[in-house]
Amino acid sequence: MEQALILLTNDDGITAPGIAALVESMKQLGKVIVVAPDSPQSGMGHAITMNHPLRLEKVSLFDGIEAYQCSGTPADCVKLAVDKVMHRRPDLLVSGINHGSNSSINVIYSGTMSAAVEGAIEGIPSIGISINDYNFNADFSAAKHYVKLIALKVLENGLPNGTLLNVNLPKGTLSEIKGLKICRQANAKWVEEFDERIDPHKRKYYWLSGKFVNNDLGNDTDEWAMENGYVSVVPTQFDLTAYHAIETLNTWNF
Amino acid sequence: MEQALILLTNDDGITAPGIAALVESMKQLGKVIVVAPDSPQSGMGHAITMNHPLRLEKVSLFDGIEAYQCSGTPADCVKLAVDKVMHRRPDLLVSGINHGSNSSINVIYSGTMSAAVEGAIEGIPSIGISINDYNFNADFSAAKHYVKLIALKVLENGLPNGTLLNVNLPKGTLSEIKGLKICRQANAKWVEEFDERIDPHKRKYYWLSGKFVNNDLGNDTDEWAMENGYVSVVPTQFDLTAYHAIETLNTWNF
Repeated sequence: MEQALILLTNDDGITAPGIAALVESMKQLGKVIVVAPDSPQSGMGHAITMNHPLRLEKVSLFDGIEAYQCSGTPADCVKLAVDKVMHRRPDLLVSGINHGSNSSINVIYSGTMSAAVEGAIEGIPSIGISINDYNFNADFSAAKHYVKLIALKVLENGLPNGTLLNVNLPKGTLSEIKGLKICRQANAKWVEEFDERIDPHKRKYYWLSGKFVNNDLGNDTDEWAMENGYVSVVPTQFDLTAYHAIETLNTWNF
Repeated sequence: MEQALILLTNDDGITAPGIAALVESMKQLGKVIVVAPDSPQSGMGHAITMNHPLRLEKVSLFDGIEAYQCSGTPADCVKLAVDKVMHRRPDLLVSGINHGSNSSINVIYSGTMSAAVEGAIEGIPSIGISINDYNFNADFSAAKHYVKLIALKVLENGLPNGTLLNVNLPKGTLSEIKGLKICRQANAKWVEEFDERIDPHKRKYYWLSGKFVNNDLGNDTDEWAMENGYVSVVPTQFDLTAYHAIETLNTWNF
């Protein structure tokens, strides 16, 4: 059988420890190619770059691994990799390992997940993986174990059409983690508390800041899984249609 | 009854003709406040600004209307409006009128829709509206008519929990448009064709470019509606869980 071709990317930038950990884990499963942003892109959502051109530079950051840094967003990296770098559609895309979880509503704001969503749109079985630890020196050993386990299953089974996986790990070592749960996205959100300041020229400016509020009491959510020591795996889709609302709207008699 | 409080924003920037048309239409329904980007933000997806501060400046662009320009993304505008500008939760948010449609997969890349999604996350009944005409001098008369019609229904009925509306108009005058259809997001995508060029310093660069491909044959999609002269209204959600895939994943025996 031909070796699996695996595209790796992230949103913390190509020099982040998380993607180095991901390379180490994924190179055991096939031929790995890295195309990742040349600078951190957290919070970029599904941004794409239309108003200025992109740069793509070959780099030697990972021993024996073909790798490129791109001046664009995570979604740009995937688009450029598919069109200009890969010689065939990859068998798997993995984005991460992100420093900081992308569970619940964070899936919407996350550059890590936007790359995985873009992969799924391109028809590539795709996984986004994050750990609930913002520390630059975070321990990625549990994440390396789980991403390999999940990637093997995806390579073996594929994923249902139009879906990808959002994987989030609680903080902790491999032995501390209790296992893995298939979950739904918790209904949680950020409550904004912008920090208002005055600059040296006496003009106001605002720093985005907020408090995470989870009012979802379900024990089948990604937040519940992580709080209880489990890895959460949420099957995620890019069809945003609220099918259950179609019937209601049809009663509105426009 | 208290007057409806309506927040308006967009992604083409506060000086775009589309938001001026939106102000004209929406001021007939209540008290309008505008908080919109100070520069075009198309393709920003759900980006938020975490690494630098935001500016918010009062402007006098719309006769008798309180308006602010913000240095951030459309999602930033909504967050800042809710936290620092509005004195209570608005009764309605409308984002647009966008120059260019945001039907099918474009909902993922769209700054217009990200503002509406952010509104829905904040619990505000929210609508994104776009016309299938990129012309700066596009005719917004049909869009003004339909956004008023739809906004009135939303103010009257609210929207099902966790949903918002993605409204797209075909090119054409009010009399040319055949009516309105409640639709689902078409399963269509962009096939990348990056334009590779060489700069004066002999280095490669790439312009994002692509071809829109719709392989969805359904006559219940937003693409079908627009191609056939109808306004499409897609109920949209920010819960990205692919519920139908949970069962499949549970058979994987992790």
